Amino acid sequence: MMRELELQKAFMLVEPGPVTMVSTSLEGRANVMTLTWITVLDWTPRFALCTGAWNYSFEALVKTGECVVGIATADLVETILDVGTVSGREVDKFTRFELTPLPASHVAAPLIGECYANIECRVADHIKRHNIFVLEGIKAWTNPAHRDKRLLHAVGDGTFTADGEVFHRRVRMGDKLPPGV
Amino acid sequence: MMRELELQKAFMLVEPGPVTMVSTSLEGRANVMTLTWITVLDWTPRFALCTGAWNYSFEALVKTGECVVGIATADLVETILDVGTVSGREVDKFTRFELTPLPASHVAAPLIGECYANIECRVADHIKRHNIFVLEGIKAWTNPAHRDKRLLHAVGDGTFTADGEVFHRRVRMGDKLPPGV
Repeated sequence: MMRELELQKAFMLVEPGPVTMVSTSLEGRANVMTLTWITVLDWTPRFALCTGAWNYSFEALVKTGECVVGIATADLVETILDVGTVSGREVDKFTRFELTPLPASHVAAPLIGECYANIECRVADHIKRHNIFVLEGIKAWTNPAHRDKRLLHAVGDGTFTADGEVFHRRVRMGDKLPPGV
Repeated sequence: MMRELELQKAFMLVEPGPVTMVSTSLEGRANVMTLTWITVLDWTPRFALCTGAWNYSFEALVKTGECVVGIATADLVETILDVGTVSGREVDKFTRFELTPLPASHVAAPLIGECYANIECRVADHIKRHNIFVLEGIKAWTNPAHRDKRLLHAVGDGTFTADGEVFHRRVRMGDKLPPGV
């Protein structure tokens, strides 16, 4: 079950640089892509997502101005490869890969039930000359019962890494931490 | 010793979402910041780096149009905290934190000897309304002798994770891999 996460913590889902699955819904048809080209813009839930017209999800992003950013974990390594190596132009990926679309609160794009976390987003700007979409997160969800919370990172050559050793340095960050985290 | 890395592989240093240290050089004075708000834009070595006027390195980036993106690894967890919690306005961070500035080929900003890898970059565009710098990588370096190659990821609350389990899925990526990687 997805539970709401305080919106001021949503940047913490993207800041570590995980592989994501981004869902869209165009004319009642849901689609999902694997995407690693995303960064937080600041401590508010604003993100820069990079993709262009070569991608089938691009049209849905432009036309609907909405998406859901799902955070992938190590247990989903085969799923992100499934989703990332076929096009929604030919395949209903939610059906083919047995993904669970869950209703979002504010956007038509579905939450992805298999993801550890999901962020409902609106497109705030589209910088066409660089293929950058600026997203604004409007509601965030996590599944506390998700067993494998190790985020997944893409190297770009077909190698993926999962989170390993954890370093707790909260005290050292002092007043550099944003409020509410 | 830093060795040149083929430029078409430079995106693989940033795609996994590591913590970076970004050096600049303004009027002969080198500085360095810790930065995690960066993403690749595509398979060419182009990056979107997010920072603004609140940051002392911002002025150097704007005035010189150059920087070096150094890739941090788990052995540098204390260093990235040192560098990230004081300002270059008050401190010469290379001296204070015993970092080794190495001459770059194409920019005045130094390579950071302690980093596993460095990418010399020019600012190709500055999207002021979103505090996004578009960087173009012009030369990349790695240190094959660097012992700890586990990349470091920032969660944003003072927690950092290092790369753990590795998944090799090159074959599964098929024709989705860009040329030359």
